[in-house]
Amino acid sequence: MNATNRQVLLASRPEGAVTRANFRIADAPRPTPQEGEVLVRNEWLSLDPYMRGRMSDAKSYVPPVQIGEVMVGQTVGRVVESRDARLQAGDRVLTQLGWQLYGVAKAGALVKIDATRIPASYYLGVVGMPGMTAWFGLNEIGKPRRDETFVVSAASGAVGSVAGQLAKLAGCRVVGIAGGREKCDYVERELGFDACIDHKAGDWQTALREACPGGIDIDFENVGGGVLDAVLRIMNPFSRVIVCGLVAEYNGPYAHAGLRSVLVNRIRMQGMIVFDWKDRYHEAVAALRRHVEAGELKYRESIVQGLDNAPQGLIDLLAGRNFGKQLVKLA
Amino acid sequence: MNATNRQVLLASRPEGAVTRANFRIADAPRPTPQEGEVLVRNEWLSLDPYMRGRMSDAKSYVPPVQIGEVMVGQTVGRVVESRDARLQAGDRVLTQLGWQLYGVAKAGALVKIDATRIPASYYLGVVGMPGMTAWFGLNEIGKPRRDETFVVSAASGAVGSVAGQLAKLAGCRVVGIAGGREKCDYVERELGFDACIDHKAGDWQTALREACPGGIDIDFENVGGGVLDAVLRIMNPFSRVIVCGLVAEYNGPYAHAGLRSVLVNRIRMQGMIVFDWKDRYHEAVAALRRHVEAGELKYRESIVQGLDNAPQGLIDLLAGRNFGKQLVKLA
Repeated sequence: MNATNRQVLLASRPEGAVTRANFRIADAPRPTPQEGEVLVRNEWLSLDPYMRGRMSDAKSYVPPVQIGEVMVGQTVGRVVESRDARLQAGDRVLTQLGWQLYGVAKAGALVKIDATRIPASYYLGVVGMPGMTAWFGLNEIGKPRRDETFVVSAASGAVGSVAGQLAKLAGCRVVGIAGGREKCDYVERELGFDACIDHKAGDWQTALREACPGGIDIDFENVGGGVLDAVLRIMNPFSRVIVCGLVAEYNGPYAHAGLRSVLVNRIRMQGMIVFDWKDRYHEAVAALRRHVEAGELKYRESIVQGLDNAPQGLIDLLAGRNFGKQLVKLA
Repeated sequence: MNATNRQVLLASRPEGAVTRANFRIADAPRPTPQEGEVLVRNEWLSLDPYMRGRMSDAKSYVPPVQIGEVMVGQTVGRVVESRDARLQAGDRVLTQLGWQLYGVAKAGALVKIDATRIPASYYLGVVGMPGMTAWFGLNEIGKPRRDETFVVSAASGAVGSVAGQLAKLAGCRVVGIAGGREKCDYVERELGFDACIDHKAGDWQTALREACPGGIDIDFENVGGGVLDAVLRIMNPFSRVIVCGLVAEYNGPYAHAGLRSVLVNRIRMQGMIVFDWKDRYHEAVAALRRHVEAGELKYRESIVQGLDNAPQGLIDLLAGRNFGKQLVKLA
């Protein structure tokens, strides 16, 4: 073990799409834990669409990353050195240490994870933030009823794939929207959705309408832009839109023309951030673990090798070029 | 009493703004009531923004008016001849007879009104559909809490003026948005709002922000378009948007750029139509009557004389050139 660390820093704020030039990779001294702290070696870094927001300085629910700071992100790591009785070397932990190989954190800020029955990386996905996002969004805002039609965009992604499978378990007709035939095949054949529409194919709006003969009752929106507009046109009276992500709009505002449907159909459209249910995370994790262990939730990871490739991993994720939950393998 | 009737018919569907050419005024034979029916002479016709929607054949919550049909609308009238024991000549009734001087209706479809303590025309406004729209929208979707900031557009109008005064009674800071200084003066001085912003004045967006130093918690949206976009930019976390009307968008879709705020601020945006609370109208009417009789709800009418001027009355209403609840005096 040598005594250096490696980090990805925010070098500049993106103007439009994120580029490699917005990041800087740097070596740094490995930090030393003080009393009550532990040194963690990160094994997995989660890449998520929300990171695009943190790179901007537009007003948001949390402050942006400052120029020169380590990019934020959740990781799974292993304790290397502990100066707190609650953790010991070798423990697996969930951290907010961001895009770096090593980091020091207060022991109380880390969550010890049990990777005996499910892989450690799942705590960054299906039983982590993305899975909980799907679970709270669906149950607290969508409130699915049997035989309703549920649509989810970015259907093969970390949140969408879980949301759709949970809706299916709740008895809904489930239609995904994803970019490309390969993803759609996976969503239909592996995840068991009733249909998946390829929004890169010609006249996909007609295909969506045909896949939803009874209209749409719940939309779990991860994309926004033209996808949301097409969905809004066929939403039913008293339907719900869970506004979870707007990845198509992060590089600049999109002009929505579909607001009339909200009025005419008395749609409830509601934004969500999983943090708002912080005190109820245990409920979601317990339910998601049960489903995973019962084989009811299928899950796919997309893995980038090495910290230096993390910037390109995020760029690809934001462009929809990844497939499944995007992770960076750090060790 | 002669035996003719006079009607305003839909002559053509508007392309963009409504024009006089979209209407045709015609004489017709006065209808004769059958058993169980009454003949009503209309006294007041209500003009409302929803009528623009009925003139189009875009999908909506009710079927459109067909070409050649009498324009729909609520009226207050007096029974001229009754063939039903429940009503007698001279009774004042609330009807859906539309834009005509006389009409026949089933007695059971009419609501007998009591005009002894409040003017009959109020049943088309402050204690009628517009007042109930304000009441249900505010209480069922807005759910105001003391000291929250409440914003309403078309603040001097039939719905907006009631919504703002009810929010004030609920303990909110109330800011109106209206077109023109005269309306704003009325809203501030007569209706007692804390402020009213003239959206026809230069840099009204800055004025709105200054009038809402704590941001906006509830938006009662009657206008949409650029007004809603400006409001969305300063809405607070966990705020609510009551989508009641989008009069700025009825002639064609507006491109909304503000959806990111819905996500970031976890805004609940919900469309409403007063019909959805049909079985609870009595609650709203009772509450509104109490407020009117206690002098707590100020109310202003804008009156067009004669059926032949109804088309221009609607055109002016849709362009924001009226002031207060728009009525046509028919008799």
